[in-house]
This record gives sequence, structure tokens and C-alpha cells, in this order.
Amino acid sequence: MTSTRPSRQGDTFSSRHVGAITGDRGRMLGTLGADSLTRLIELAAPADILDPVDAASLPAATDEAGVRRELTALAARNHPGRPLIGRGYHGTVTPAVIRRNVLENPSWYTAYTPYQPEISQGRLEALINFQQMVEDLTALDVANSSLLDEATAAAEAMLLARRASRAKSRRFLIGDAVLDQVRAVLAGRAEALDIELVEADLTDPRSWGPQVEQGCFGVLADYPDGHGRIWHPGDLFEAVHAAKGICVAECDILALALLTPPGEMGADVAVGSTQRFGVPLGFGGPHAGYMAVRKGLERQLPGRLVGASRDADGIPAYRLALQTREQHIRRDRATSNICTAQVLLAVMAGMYAVWHGPRGIRRIATRVHAQTVRLAEGLRAAGFPIGVEPFFDTLRIRVPGGARNLWEAARTAGFTLDLIDDDTLGISLDETVTDEEVADLVGLCGSAHDPAPAVTGADAGWEWPTALIRTSDYLTHPVFNSFGSETAMMRYLKRLADRDFGLDRGMIPLGSCTMKLNAAIEMEPISWPAFADLHPYAPASDAEGSLAMIADLETWLAQLTGYDTVSLQPNAGSQGEYAGLLAIRGYHHSRGEDGRRVCLVPSSAHGTNAASAALAGMRVVVVASDEAGNIDLADLAAKIATHSDELAAIMITYPSTHGVYETQVRRVCRMVHDAGGQVYIDGANLNALVGVARPGEIGGDVSHLNLHKTFAIPHGGGGPGVGPLAAKAHLAPFMPGSPVGTRVDHPLAGGGTVEHSGHPVAAATFGSAGVLPISWAYIRLMGLDGLREATGQAVLNANYVARRLGSRIPVLYTGANGLVAHECILDLRPLTHDTGITVDDVAKRLIDYGFHAPTMSFPVSGTLMVEPTESEDLSELDRFCEAMLAIVDEAGKVAAGDWPADDNPLVNAPHPAARLLDDEWHHPYSRREAAYPGMVASATRDAEAGLHVNPVTRIQAKYWPPVGRIDNAYGDRHLVCSCPPPEAFEEH
Amino acid sequence: MTSTRPSRQGDTFSSRHVGAITGDRGRMLGTLGADSLTRLIELAAPADILDPVDAASLPAATDEAGVRRELTALAARNHPGRPLIGRGYHGTVTPAVIRRNVLENPSWYTAYTPYQPEISQGRLEALINFQQMVEDLTALDVANSSLLDEATAAAEAMLLARRASRAKSRRFLIGDAVLDQVRAVLAGRAEALDIELVEADLTDPRSWGPQVEQGCFGVLADYPDGHGRIWHPGDLFEAVHAAKGICVAECDILALALLTPPGEMGADVAVGSTQRFGVPLGFGGPHAGYMAVRKGLERQLPGRLVGASRDADGIPAYRLALQTREQHIRRDRATSNICTAQVLLAVMAGMYAVWHGPRGIRRIATRVHAQTVRLAEGLRAAGFPIGVEPFFDTLRIRVPGGARNLWEAARTAGFTLDLIDDDTLGISLDETVTDEEVADLVGLCGSAHDPAPAVTGADAGWEWPTALIRTSDYLTHPVFNSFGSETAMMRYLKRLADRDFGLDRGMIPLGSCTMKLNAAIEMEPISWPAFADLHPYAPASDAEGSLAMIADLETWLAQLTGYDTVSLQPNAGSQGEYAGLLAIRGYHHSRGEDGRRVCLVPSSAHGTNAASAALAGMRVVVVASDEAGNIDLADLAAKIATHSDELAAIMITYPSTHGVYETQVRRVCRMVHDAGGQVYIDGANLNALVGVARPGEIGGDVSHLNLHKTFAIPHGGGGPGVGPLAAKAHLAPFMPGSPVGTRVDHPLAGGGTVEHSGHPVAAATFGSAGVLPISWAYIRLMGLDGLREATGQAVLNANYVARRLGSRIPVLYTGANGLVAHECILDLRPLTHDTGITVDDVAKRLIDYGFHAPTMSFPVSGTLMVEPTESEDLSELDRFCEAMLAIVDEAGKVAAGDWPADDNPLVNAPHPAARLLDDEWHHPYSRREAAYPGMVASATRDAEAGLHVNPVTRIQAKYWPPVGRIDNAYGDRHLVCSCPPPEAFEEH
Repeated sequence: MTSTRPSRQGDTFSSRHVGAITGDRGRMLGTLGADSLTRLIELAAPADILDPVDAASLPAATDEAGVRRELTALAARNHPGRPLIGRGYHGTVTPAVIRRNVLENPSWYTAYTPYQPEISQGRLEALINFQQMVEDLTALDVANSSLLDEATAAAEAMLLARRASRAKSRRFLIGDAVLDQVRAVLAGRAEALDIELVEADLTDPRSWGPQVEQGCFGVLADYPDGHGRIWHPGDLFEAVHAAKGICVAECDILALALLTPPGEMGADVAVGSTQRFGVPLGFGGPHAGYMAVRKGLERQLPGRLVGASRDADGIPAYRLALQTREQHIRRDRATSNICTAQVLLAVMAGMYAVWHGPRGIRRIATRVHAQTVRLAEGLRAAGFPIGVEPFFDTLRIRVPGGARNLWEAARTAGFTLDLIDDDTLGISLDETVTDEEVADLVGLCGSAHDPAPAVTGADAGWEWPTALIRTSDYLTHPVFNSFGSETAMMRYLKRLADRDFGLDRGMIPLGSCTMKLNAAIEMEPISWPAFADLHPYAPASDAEGSLAMIADLETWLAQLTGYDTVSLQPNAGSQGEYAGLLAIRGYHHSRGEDGRRVCLVPSSAHGTNAASAALAGMRVVVVASDEAGNIDLADLAAKIATHSDELAAIMITYPSTHGVYETQVRRVCRMVHDAGGQVYIDGANLNALVGVARPGEIGGDVSHLNLHKTFAIPHGGGGPGVGPLAAKAHLAPFMPGSPVGTRVDHPLAGGGTVEHSGHPVAAATFGSAGVLPISWAYIRLMGLDGLREATGQAVLNANYVARRLGSRIPVLYTGANGLVAHECILDLRPLTHDTGITVDDVAKRLIDYGFHAPTMSFPVSGTLMVEPTESEDLSELDRFCEAMLAIVDEAGKVAAGDWPADDNPLVNAPHPAARLLDDEWHHPYSRREAAYPGMVASATRDAEAGLHVNPVTRIQAKYWPPVGRIDNAYGDRHLVCSCPPPEAFEEH
Repeated sequence: MTSTRPSRQGDTFSSRHVGAITGDRGRMLGTLGADSLTRLIELAAPADILDPVDAASLPAATDEAGVRRELTALAARNHPGRPLIGRGYHGTVTPAVIRRNVLENPSWYTAYTPYQPEISQGRLEALINFQQMVEDLTALDVANSSLLDEATAAAEAMLLARRASRAKSRRFLIGDAVLDQVRAVLAGRAEALDIELVEADLTDPRSWGPQVEQGCFGVLADYPDGHGRIWHPGDLFEAVHAAKGICVAECDILALALLTPPGEMGADVAVGSTQRFGVPLGFGGPHAGYMAVRKGLERQLPGRLVGASRDADGIPAYRLALQTREQHIRRDRATSNICTAQVLLAVMAGMYAVWHGPRGIRRIATRVHAQTVRLAEGLRAAGFPIGVEPFFDTLRIRVPGGARNLWEAARTAGFTLDLIDDDTLGISLDETVTDEEVADLVGLCGSAHDPAPAVTGADAGWEWPTALIRTSDYLTHPVFNSFGSETAMMRYLKRLADRDFGLDRGMIPLGSCTMKLNAAIEMEPISWPAFADLHPYAPASDAEGSLAMIADLETWLAQLTGYDTVSLQPNAGSQGEYAGLLAIRGYHHSRGEDGRRVCLVPSSAHGTNAASAALAGMRVVVVASDEAGNIDLADLAAKIATHSDELAAIMITYPSTHGVYETQVRRVCRMVHDAGGQVYIDGANLNALVGVARPGEIGGDVSHLNLHKTFAIPHGGGGPGVGPLAAKAHLAPFMPGSPVGTRVDHPLAGGGTVEHSGHPVAAATFGSAGVLPISWAYIRLMGLDGLREATGQAVLNANYVARRLGSRIPVLYTGANGLVAHECILDLRPLTHDTGITVDDVAKRLIDYGFHAPTMSFPVSGTLMVEPTESEDLSELDRFCEAMLAIVDEAGKVAAGDWPADDNPLVNAPHPAARLLDDEWHHPYSRREAAYPGMVASATRDAEAGLHVNPVTRIQAKYWPPVGRIDNAYGDRHLVCSCPPPEAFEEH
């Protein structure tokens, strides 16, 4: 680690990723009394954790051209072919206008979760479109803004049913045809929470009748079922309701365009995947799962919910509704640990509906079905019995003894069918199917019958029962009927993007969220068909490139964390945590220590920790913090003593959620180990360790990482997340296994491989495999030196901000030598006490200054947590510091009485343009002060420093918040989670 | 052609391309008394031109998935390999941040030429960066903002020299090593203008001395020369100057990072290509050529020149400088017909310099040279004499009798070298070269010598003479030294894009410029390596996919235009025109009718017509228009009679530049043919004919088309353009041949192939081949029916606007039944007369309303020409009409004295935010009236119509012009065409 880079521009990728400019770094280090990044880390972190990773553990860094060559070579080893496997994953045509203007547009993918709704109106509108789409297609009242995938959505529905049901049973009924991955994820959740999972043939009352009679708190009915059968769950739902159970329908979103929707058949809840609405297969993810509920259950909904409200001027505006339900507030009373959505993918799926509209969606569904009928007709003519009727898009054909041969023949012709057993094949069609393909498939089966291209169900004798044919409208809102031309659609996407503040505009200094650069070269491969079009259950020989990339990533992440084995399956940090705790649980169980169910969690922990522990069936015991914010060792000792036999684990975050390298971390680990507990180190802050210390060496047994934080996967406006699990070898057998029983040999540190055989936590073996090229490319481009440089610069940037602001705004916690780690907590409580100006006011006022606010009131109420990341340069850091100092001055004017407490630029912030241009202006500050605070001064300084950033440019680059401060309480009182009618926006 | 499409969304691509929504089309047709698009065309156009193209002439339309499959298949037939051919085209690494945020970003590629500077500040800044970069690297004073390619830049330099030189000679001296394509293009220009092109060995005074002594008006010195040799042209330049000639240096832009720049060696002019600054090879283009001149020659510069000026508030602002030089104003006194630049590519090249900065550029150049030295060392050790020294990046090696074998061996190893003759090979390295590649190349030559990777010239005995080593700085402006991190670069690109108004924001209703949709699916393939990385001189077997695509396009365009053969070589409409006139000239010459040099041009013609005729050595005779704006047949007859023996051609535009289907077009053609003349039909308005009439059937002998207008190639902010030439078979031999002598068999209508053997007009055989996938995809997606629908809708949209506005703003010219063709001229002269409000005021006020202004004062002064294109929907058309009507009302208030003539929202338009938020506001209209005119009313109407577009959204989506009205005269008086120093932007 050198203190200045040898050259200014472009000699290495890391010099592009890291914001500091030669010279600036030295100046910044100077303010902290360090002469190099290495020295800074030595000053900030305890010596006993520093453990530089072996230089040989990662390949040397490459450059943009090099990584593109390597990615191209990996891509060439993938052969997506033409998968007709189905099983919840279907080929789809991503409209190019959406691919280019959403998936490949930094304005969408670099945005943060819309916790600051005033600067997130674009994606909030996109998400409410998604909710409306799900509500319409399911005919249920309230949908959330996505879940992690179909299997976890089903699991969340099961938990919702348990909460909402008044039945006394602990039994939950599922269909015996349910998709393997859904069954597997449910089984894991059920075991952890002592739920009895019962299977029955849900299409047959003789099978499910006795089960319902025995009692159950709910049922999950797959519709069409996992074999492709369409059936009517009306009687089942009636019976379950009579038993006080909750009825969940797991539905194919496209089929609902033609089928009677679950809301019209008595379902209380519907779940599923929206993948086939334009989201690439991506070898399993990321895709947006969905959940919708009937009225009355909305407060039970897990995940995020977008609702309409109004702003300070009475203008309609969107924001996240009912946030008090969320795990980060409920902590150990949590009923879900889901804190990541799949926003980017939900936006794509919602926009697919906006693009196609009701007629388009219906046409697509009709065509898929018609082609399936045509195929069935051809197969029947060839003498293959169709095993399952009626069907939508999936056929099960019986080929006694010949399934494998036929499967092989299809492979030769380019198709991958679903080989169910030696006698049975599945074929699932999708919107990409062509006439020629159906003809080829029929030909493969040796049919002499040449099916006509336009056969319909009714013609061919494959018609559906009337009760299953949808008669109700959907997607009737104007948003689904206005953007028929690409020109109109492109402009709609642009208008929405323009309302939002992403990394493409300026710093997003969110503590604990690490909004670093997502480099274009890292992002490009995720759109390549070789990665995007791979089916998660494709044969391994089709996926050699992706499997090699995954093996690389597992190896590299193990090296960087000091663990032995890594699972990439968890598709969010929350799922990684949950999987890690399940692994600990499995480990204790394997040793006959089932009584170990207490999980120690420091009081400063992120809410998800407690929620995950609860979901893993553990009991949370909180460990106090001392005055410096560190774990109180005395209290820890006491808690360990009290719970010694029950001690399962401690969950710590390192550096702590206070942004500090605690000095006693090794001791904490030892204390827990000595008591027979396992140590879970939350990897949320791994970006302050990469290349300089390793949780596995510090004492951790298991950690989850956040690829979307530390390893450059973009935040996507609130998802996708990727939360790999890394662990010591003794936990390997309990790490998440394949949800479909595929054998996977994971690399083991030191050589050899190991299997993971625990309960799966996601629908796809490798989770959000479609975005892994991003992290792979990031590590390949940075190399170990680059990663270490990034860590050092992140720490330097945080300390620079802390030092510059510290004299005016106290930094709440610091570690050795008064230094923080990669983030700092600014304590605004004194300011609020003195001036009445709140954290909220400061956050909203920062919008006028052209910033996304830092994290508010986490982990300590009344504070702002700032994490600049390594990607910001000195100019942007100074701009932020100056904005904060100017705001403190503004607050001073309120305290001094220059401005009234109820009419000043802070409490009125943010200032939308429409208000600023009102004829009337009676505020005690000027329009310019409202709109351009501090900009001219700050930009003049830039100019003096020789930077090509001028006051005019700064003003010309102003981000205009589209609305004023949003009234959250009003929105929660008048809950509207669907697209408001156009009249709502008429003049007020 | 049906009057309404069967379904609303997505059943065909054409329904996505065309803006009209079902129902809207019927309503619009109703206002015009037509019941279908077919009927509308019948009413608007003379029956004798209507000639529906044979349905079999184009393949049936495909959809997005289909075209992607076909493009993928074509791409798979290209094998870019590793071309080390050089010859003016070099491998380069396009930085991903530029590829994604410029090349693939609609905000950049859909923008128009920056004729409205107030809404083009972003790309104007990007272009002035480009100019600064060229000025710095050439050490000359003023650079323009790009030319079409290196060869045309050389030709323009020759013409500049002739204008600027006081020598009496008609001789122009060039080096005998000059690149083939440069020589070929110069030769054509020289012949047309009676210039004698003389070759000499410019490195040898014994060769050039006598030539200069004989007299010459200038010299073009290639540096390094076409063989790769570096030499010092100082003595040559001194001698030519002494002979009153102008000295032009043709330079490799990258070499100038290390070599003494031409401005320091006495050059008056420098030209070259900026391709290797991050712009993909693209099988030959588009790339930005450059030209820089010393002080004193700036008013002789062809092409566009960006300069700094100031706006109405005194804020620094950019705009096109010295526009009075331009051909569209100079007409037949023109000295260049260049009216298209390569803006998008110039932006990329300029941003490459911004990204790498001086150190990065120097490092890249140094590395390329060091690798070349290393290669030379290895080759020398292997016994291959290096033919040319000193060198920068290109070696000529002598392999007596063995060149072809070695070339084949290199091919087998993946390299394509430059096979010069049986005894000579060229090898040209570039920034993408790797250590391994050099080792492989050395190995191929059988060298046992393993060259060290870090050999430098000095070490190896390949050092350059001191006088050739650059000592001066370059790229010292802060803009080249501020955006070192990708985060900073991404934000800079976003800030610039945010200042501009592109099609992604709203309609750009430019008459004669056809700003239609550029669909994402059409744009995607141009970034694919298979198309992007192909060298223009790659063997045909490497380019099968591109060659097949080119043959398709030639065939389809011939079908659609009614001609026999098509050349895709011209890389702008102006070049197509010029090539067409050269073909006519060649044809007359071949018949012994060299006296035919008169070109008739109607008075309404586009300025380029006359300029092209002048450049082709023809004399322009203007034919008058009658009162209806049509060609005055009596005057035509008279002019034909007067010039009968000299009559070469008539150039007409159809529909006319007045936007009308003239009824007598067949008669005009007959009259000219009868007099022995040829008919040139300018295809600028072909978008009003595609699928319904064909210029080749109407009477044309030759036409150029504009792919960037009619066939969906984006405007790119002012380039690339593609201007194919289509002609009858008798002109085929005179159409542009290959600039490097490659034999090309062009498809001939009716079967067979034909060669084109005329003078080339561009550096690459297929011109801007890299963007042809766009037009190919457009035609494949639209099919004949879709193209015809687009034509009909374009005519409908124009007539709808004319009808809605006509009662308040007279439409200047109409044809049959009071209908216009695809555009209409709004006559503002009465308004100006009555109110004092000018065309300029209306155009600038439209910015406040959220529009790009229509074409101003062309073809008739005091008017606006509006071409809505087929891609706009009724909602956007109405928004435009309402804005225009509201502006007329506003002008009425000025006339009525409600507002003073010198202080009203029209003369003060546009209103930048900084002015609107000033504390002081003394205007007689409100801030809201200034900023949001008519928006609320128009949006309420939208809401009533059930559209999901609300007043709030409209206001929230406001485009904020970054500056007020720009003072052009001030800028021309204080000409600054370089990046202004930062201090220029300090507070005023």
C-alpha cells in the first residue's frame, strides 16, 4: 500500500475505482497524522487483527481490456441453448428499451433504497406500478414491492399464515407437486420454527380432506401446480378457511392473464415470481418474487410496501408505507428478516407490464398456451400420452423407459427438456418459442402429424373448465395503457430517472450501506446472453463458464475472509445471516447440543441480526454496550455465565455498527468459544477489512458478506442483494445445499472440495448468479493490492470527514487514536437540543445542497451515520463537509432567532422548484438561499483549486427535488398502495 | 395500410416505432377528411408517382427477439481476430464508462446538431474539449469540432490550402507513402476541381525539391508517413512556405503525444483521425477526423467550430462560432459541402482524453512504442531487416519471397498483418497489444531472441532524433486533469447530458432533419465486438457477417428507391450528393460530353446541393420557384434552353424542401432528360416516400439517401451521418470505388452484380459500416408494411399539426387538397410584422415550454419548418400545438401593449433557473409564467383524456435550460475555440 499512486489516471483499474487524486491523498493523510494508508490502518485498528492476506491468494490485477477478454472466454464456455425446463424459470424477451434504459442505466442501478422518498419519486412510482400489476393479476388488494424469490416468498407466506391464522395447529399444508426448490426452502423454515409441513394431493379432496380435518394454520396451493396442472382450489380454500387457516396461492404470473385469479377463488395471499416478465434467467436470479394479500392482511405483509401520500404543499407523492412493520425497527419481535427487495428487477417486471399493457400480456399468455396446445396435439398424434391436463404452458409426457433417450435427442437438436425420471419428461414453453421450434419438437418425437400453427385449446379438445377462465380485467390503469411507442416509453423511463438521485449525480454517504462505484466494465457482462439466458437447472456442461466463475469467487472470498468454504446461495445479506445461524444450529444439533438456542446480540447490532436469529429458532439475548459504544465485556461475561449451556452463538459486527474497530474483538470471540458457542461475524462492514484483516482469523466461525456493499454489485434502488456465507470447515456440512438436490463440490481452502448439505435458503443453487460477474470482475480488476488500497482509502475518507466536521458536529464513537473505521456517526442531538433542528431537517436540507442524506438515526437515534466509501474524491468530500457546516450555521440562525423555528430553510426543506417559483414568497430567506445554498461559495473554491468545476456549472447541475417533504403519517392513515387515479394529480 | 392497428401494444415492432395510439389515428385522419393512411397519401401526393413497392422485395417483418437472433447469427460470421494492419486504423480500448454513458446513452446519441445552443451546452462543452485536445496535440491554434474521416479531412485541407495560398500554382504536393485511401480521395477531389496532384518522397529533398520549385499551392506531409516512418518536415515546410504554399501535416494523433507536434515544425494545418482515441474500428467508421489550423486561418476552416460566448445574463456559454462560413449559408460560393460532423465520435475521442489525461495519453503512446521497439528487436534478431526507421508503432519488414507465408502463419496464430507485397509485411501495434502477443509475433518469425518486455527506443538503438522528440506539454487544462476516477467521470458525463435536450426528453420537430425514434434494439449491436472490432481492411473471410448485412442493405435500399445499385460508402449526405454528381460527371465524360457542367438547382434547394455541385466542378444555375413554391416550369424550360449543351443535371428534392409533393415532378424529369441531362433526386425527404413511391421510378437517375434521417441511425448530436448513393445501372461504373482497390461486387437489381469504379469519397470502402446494423435492423423490424405505415403516419402527423395551427399561423406552402407532405412551414412573418416577435423569440420561448425549436428560417427566412416524424404520438403533437398557440397569444399581448416590446417572456426566453430564482424580479410577467407556461393547462387536458400524465409530473419533468439566450455576435467578435480557463466561470 503506497501513500500516493504513481500516476494520476488509468495506470490501474484501482486508481479508477478509488476517488483520491494524487496529492490529495497525502494532504488528507496529513490531517490525520499518518504518512500512508498502511499507517492509517495501523493507527485505527488493533494490531492483533491485522493480517495481510497472502499475495498469492488472488491473481494479479488485470485491466479493462484484460477482464473483458477473460469474461468473454468464460462466456464462451456457457451454452444457454434453448431451455424448456420450466420449474419456475422461463425464457422471456427483455424489451430492449427496458434493458438499455433501466438495467444498463446508472440512474436506475446505482440508486439507493428509497428511504428518502423526496429524491426517490421515480423508482417509487415504478414500484407502485409493480404493486398495481401484481394486485391486478392476482385480484388481491395489496401487493408489496417484491420479495427475494419465489421460494422465499412462499416461506414468508407460510410465516404470515402462522401469524394471521387463528387456528391452533402448527401444521401447514402444501401440495405434493410443489416445485422442489419451494418445498426445500419451506422445509428449512418449518424445521427452524417448529412447523409441521404436510403434503397432500391438493387436487384431490380425498387426499387433502383428512389433512385439513386434522387442523392446519394454512395451505400453500400451487397454481398451476409444479407438474403444470391447472386446477380449481376453491373447495380446498373453503375447507381451510373453515378450519381458520390462511390460504396461500403460489401462482405463475403469466398464467394469471388467462386463469381465474387467486383473489377470485378465495385466496388470502398470493406469491410467485415475476421473472418471466422480462427479467433474464441469469442462471437463477436475481428476480423479483411477489406477494399480494387481501385487505386486512396488509399490516402482516413482509418486505417493502410503497404507498401514496402527499408532500408539504399537498402534492401527491410516494413513499414507503407502514415502515414500522419493518425488521429494522421490530428487531427480535420481527417476523421476517427480509430487508432487501429486488427493486431493479421489480422495476423491470413492472415496466414490462407498462410496455405490453393488458392486451399485450394477454396476447403473450395466449400465444404461449396456443403453442403448448399445438405441441400437445403433435405429441398426442405421435402416441405420447400427455400426463397432466388441463395445462397452461407445461406438459408432462410419459415415455416409458425412453425418457432419457428422447431427452438426449432433444439436446442434440438444441433443446433442454426437463428429465423427470426414466419414464417422464417435462416440456415448458415460454414467450420466446417460435413456430419452428414447436415443429422441431414434434418432429423429434417422431410425429407424422404436422400441427397447425394456430390451434387453440377449444379447437383441440384441450379446453379449460369455465370456472378456470379469467373474466375479470387487469392492468386497466392508464399507466399500463399510455406508453405504447418506444419513444413514449423511453421518455417515461427518463422522466422517472430524472426525479431520482443516484450515484451518477453525487455522493450517497450512507453509513452501513457502502454506496461505492459500480464500474461499467463490471456491469456490462450481466446483459450478455451467455450469462443472462442460462437456466438455473441447465446441465453443468452448459454452464461451465459460470461454474468456473463461481468457483473462482468462492475461492477468492474464502481467501479474503480467512474462511474455508463459501456459499453464494443467499440472495441477500439477511438470507446469509439466516443461513449462517442455521449452520450453527445444525452444528450444535450434530453434536447432540440441541439445547444451544441462545444467540447473544450486542445492543448496537443491526436489526436484521436479531430477526435472523428469531427466524432460525434462536432466542435473542442482548449484550450491553459500554460508554464508548463497544461491547461491555462484563455484561458479556455475565450473559455467557447465565446462558452457558444454552449458548449457541454471538453475532457481532466488525468493525462495529458504530463504525469503530473495537480493540477487544479477539477476546470476545475467545470468551464465546470457551463457553461452547460459535462466533458469527456479520460481514456488513467487511469493506473496512478487505486485504488487511480477516474475520475467519479474528475468531469468526462464520460470516455473511454483502457483495452489493463490499464487492461492487450495485444497490439497484434497493436490490438485488447478494449475501454469501463464508465459514470454517466444521460448519460446511450445514451450509445451504442445493434446493433441487444437485451435487455441488465447493472448493475448500487448502485444497479439495466440500459439500454443503444444509437446508437451502433460496430457490436457486447459486442464488443471484446473474449478477456474480460484477463481483468477479471487481476482484479481478482490483487484485489484492487494489482491494487493500480501497480499504485504506475508505478508512481515510471516513476519518477525513470525521476530522473536518468533528469540531462542529461531535463524532459519537471513535476507536484507537481517536480514529473511526470506514464510517462515522455524527451526533446531532446537541444541535437538535440547541436549535430545535432535527436529524430529519438536516437530511432534507441536504437535498437542497445536492446530496443524498446519510443514514438517519441508525444505529443511534438522533444521529447521522456517514460512510463516504473509497470512491469519492476530495472535491466531493469537501462539498459534503461544507454543506454540513453550512447547515449547522443555518441551524444557528434559527437558534439565534434570525429565522423563526417554524419557517426557515431547514424545516421547509427540501424546496421543490414549483414552490420556489410561486408568485408569493413570504419566507424570511430568499429563493436563492433556498435553492442554491452554499453552492456558489463552494464552487468558487473549486475554481481556485484549479478544478474545472465552476459556479455556473454547479448551479446548472442542480438536482431539483420533484416534491417537498412528504407526510408519512398521512400516508399511513390513508393507505393507498396502488397507482393513484389520474384525477389525484389534478390541480389542487 | 390499415387505418388503425389491430392492437395497442407490441404485436409488431412498427406499432412501437410509430407513435400513434389506436383510436388517435382515426381521430387525426378525421380532421383531414381521410379514412386511412393510404387515402391520405392519395390525397396529398400526385397519382402518377404512387408506386407501391412489390411486397416480395423485402423480407417480412420480424420482432425484437427475431432480429436479435439474426444479428447474433451475422455477428457469429465476423471474426475480428487481432488486426495489426494499421493503415490509419488501430485497435483501441473504449473505456467502458464512455461506452456505457455516451455511446449507449440516448441522451447523447439522440440529440440534434447544437444549432440551439441554449439546450446543447453539454455536447458543446464536450466538443470544445475535443477541439482543445486537437489543438494541444497538434500545437496549432484552432481546431474544428471534427470532420468526416481522415481522407476527407485531407481533401478539405487541400481545398483550404488552395483558398488560403497566394501561390499561383494549381499543383498540390503529397508524399509518395501517403495512405492509399487518402491518396484516392484526394485524387477524386483534385480531378473535379482541376488540381494537379503531385507525389514525391517528402523525406528526401532531392525528390521534393524540384517539385516545390515548379510551384505548388500546398503540401500534405504524412507524419508518421504511410509506411510508418517518422521524419522531420521542417525543411520541406520552409521551402513550401517560401513558395507561398500552405503546409498541411497529416498526423497520427497518438504519435503526437511523443513526437514534436506539427505546429512546432511550421505546419499551417494538421489533419488526421481520432479513431484510436477510444472509438471502435467498426469496419471503417464512423470516426471523427480532425483539422486544426494556425491563427489567421480559422475563418477558412470547414466544418463546425464551437466557441465560447456569453448569454443574456453574462454567463459564459458555448455555441457554434462563425456560422456564416457554413455551406448552408454560402451555397454556391461554398468551398466545402461538409455539413455533418462526427459529433458522437468526437465526444468519445475527447472524453478519452479527459479520461486518460496527459499522463495517461503519454503512457499509452510510450507503451505502444516500447512494444514496437521490442518487436523490432526480436525481428532483427530473427534476421528480418526493419525497412523503415525511425518508427512509432508500425514496422515494415522485408521477407523476400516469404511475405505471404509469414502472413498466413500469423493468421493461423490469430493475427492479421499487413501484406504489402510478396516481399514486404507491415505490422502495426496499438494500445491493446499485450506482452504475450509481442512474444507470439517474435516467435512466429522464428526468433530465438526473447525480447525483454520493457525495452525502450534508447536502450535498443532505435532512438529518435532529438528534433522529433516532443518537449511541449499538452492537455494541461483542468478538464483533462480532474476526472480520474470513474465515479467523477460518470458524473461529469451525466452533468453534461443533463444540460441537453434530446429525444429522450421530448419532440425535436426539426423540419428536414427527421428526428425519429432510434430504437434500443437497433442500437445494441453497434457495441458488439463482432461489429465494433472489425478492421476495414480485414480479409473478406473475416467479415462475412458484415458483408452479408451490407449486401442486404444495398439490395433493400435499391428496392425501396427504385434504383439498380447502391453504394454505402458516403459517410454523410453531403458526400452522397458529391459522389452522385461525380457519377453524373463521369457518365457524361464517358460519352464524350465533358462540356456538360451546368447543374440546375431550384431556388428552394438545400444549400448543400449547390455546394456539392461546386465541389464536383459544376456550375450552378438557379431555377426559380413559382408562387406556390414549386419549380417554375417556364423558368426551367428557359434555363434548359439557354444551357442545353452544357446541361449536366438537375438536382431536385422530392418532396420539395418546402415540404410539398410537387405535382409536376415527372414532367420536370422528362424535360431534363429530353435535354440530355441527368436527374439527381435528393433523398433528404425520402421518409415521405418509402413504401409508397420510388425516386428511381419517378424519373431520377441517382439519389443519395440519409440513413440517419430515414433509416433510424441516430443524429448523435450532429453526426454520424450515412449518405448512401443509389443509382440506375448506367451510372454504376462511376459510383465510388474502393479507396484501397478492393474488388467489391455490388448486388444489381434484377440479379447479378456490378462494380463501382469511380473515385472514392471516403476513407473506408463501406463508409460508416459500424452503424449499418442500425438501419439493417430497422428495415428487418419494420418490413415493407411497417415502413409504409411509418410514411403514412409521418404525413398524417405533419398535416395534423398544419391543420391545428393553420388558422393562427399560416402554413406557407401546401400541395394537392391543401395537404403538405411530411413537414410544414409555419410562416411567422405576419406575426413578426404584427407583434415584433421574431422567429428567434418563438424558438427560444419553445425551450421554456419544453421543446426543441423547429428548423429556423429554412428554407424560407422568417419561418419555422416543423417535421414531427411518425414516432410522435398525439399527446406530444397536441402539447406542441398548444405551446405554439400559447406563444401566439403571448405575442398578442406584446402587440396589445400588455407587455413592453423589450421585456416580455418571448424576448427574454429562455429563462434559466438561476435567473428565475433571483431575489429581484421586475418583469411584467410572473416567474411561473416564465418557467411553466401552459404546462398546467395542457397536462390537465391529458389527465382528462385518461392519460397518466399529470400537471405535477409535467412540472416535475421540466427541462431547465442551463443558460439564457446566447449572444452569437459577441462570441464571433471575441473568438475563443478552446476550453475557457476556470476563472472565466467565476462569479460575475
